[in-house]
Amino acid sequence: MEIEVLEGVFDANEIIAGKNRAILDGCGAFMVNVMASPGAGKTSVILKTLAGVVDGLSCAVVEGDIAGRIDSERIAETGVPAIQINTGGSCHLEARQVNTALERLDLDGVDLVLVENVGNLVCPAEFRLGEDRRVMILSVAEGHDKPLKYPLMFSESDVLLVNKVDLIPYTDFDMDNLKETVRKMNPRIRIFEISCRTGEGIDEWVGWLKEQMEKKDNGRKAED
Amino acid sequence: MEIEVLEGVFDANEIIAGKNRAILDGCGAFMVNVMASPGAGKTSVILKTLAGVVDGLSCAVVEGDIAGRIDSERIAETGVPAIQINTGGSCHLEARQVNTALERLDLDGVDLVLVENVGNLVCPAEFRLGEDRRVMILSVAEGHDKPLKYPLMFSESDVLLVNKVDLIPYTDFDMDNLKETVRKMNPRIRIFEISCRTGEGIDEWVGWLKEQMEKKDNGRKAED
Repeated sequence: MEIEVLEGVFDANEIIAGKNRAILDGCGAFMVNVMASPGAGKTSVILKTLAGVVDGLSCAVVEGDIAGRIDSERIAETGVPAIQINTGGSCHLEARQVNTALERLDLDGVDLVLVENVGNLVCPAEFRLGEDRRVMILSVAEGHDKPLKYPLMFSESDVLLVNKVDLIPYTDFDMDNLKETVRKMNPRIRIFEISCRTGEGIDEWVGWLKEQMEKKDNGRKAED
Repeated sequence: MEIEVLEGVFDANEIIAGKNRAILDGCGAFMVNVMASPGAGKTSVILKTLAGVVDGLSCAVVEGDIAGRIDSERIAETGVPAIQINTGGSCHLEARQVNTALERLDLDGVDLVLVENVGNLVCPAEFRLGEDRRVMILSVAEGHDKPLKYPLMFSESDVLLVNKVDLIPYTDFDMDNLKETVRKMNPRIRIFEISCRTGEGIDEWVGWLKEQMEKKDNGRKAED
């Protein structure tokens, strides 16, 4: 009985996620779902990404939090349009919430929509939002043993950003161990070592993201 | 309709949590529910706590993880009985899972049961397990702005352990800001600054825990 209810929720979410994808494809926007534990650096990564892609690209941000508007205020300070979704207790974003946000954003001319999911290494992995890429962040302070404990997030993500690498000298973090474990679970995942504090690795991540956006854009042009 | 289902789940959980509390009270054991984000240091805190309370006290550990048995193996190496609960995807422990674990543990003579919840700063706060105290851990690497984003966990916990304080010099963490925010939300919360790496603050936390255990024990004796 419980399982039937859950399946209903997931099915409904998948349908709306498909609608979101159609909206984004229709206007040529690329959407990235950014997922991580609390404090891994989601907002910092988004701010660095916005700064990195700023030349010639138009961006928008959807901020998901249980409560508060700290993050959307930080984004709005940069001049990028930001919409805050307060889930009111729910531990993940669902496609219907992103659908509402996409309807309210003026997507005309927008190239990139960055969605900051609720801080949680579990539930957000289960809910597709209609995104083009799923990006997860792991802070080195969380430890290299996390993939075995939170397997779905690591196996469902297209990109792993290992953040706060400037803290490695002060921790027991083993980067080789992490990469080996993650690649066994998800051979196609892209891994970037970054530090939002020092800027290390941000160019490589942003460069890759721009490539993905260009590929989608070229695909659309080829279809026309 | 959905809300009714959720209320049903929560009610059922509360009933079993009450049963767990009765089992624990019956045998004089004290149970602590340890909650935190992934990588905040739950297992390290449990290992330090076990080492701190070892004199004359008998302990047991219930390990909750989505998958894997890394943590229960770390505990078992210390000689303390540990039971691993794999939630198989679920992002929090429920009272019924802890009930099964309590039934399988030999509680005769056990003074302290430490329960490590699934790494998640959201959902575990909603599910009582029958614990005597709820302890949450925040790593300084997560940032001092977390209470406003994850209010339920901070307002529902009896104790906040601020872990990894040895990393403060390498972060922007503002301890005064954190404490002020948390105490506005939860005036009765106890806050300890600790580092499992250096051992800082562990004695204060363990001393407080022992006091709470003695109070419960004295209460029982007065009732007899």
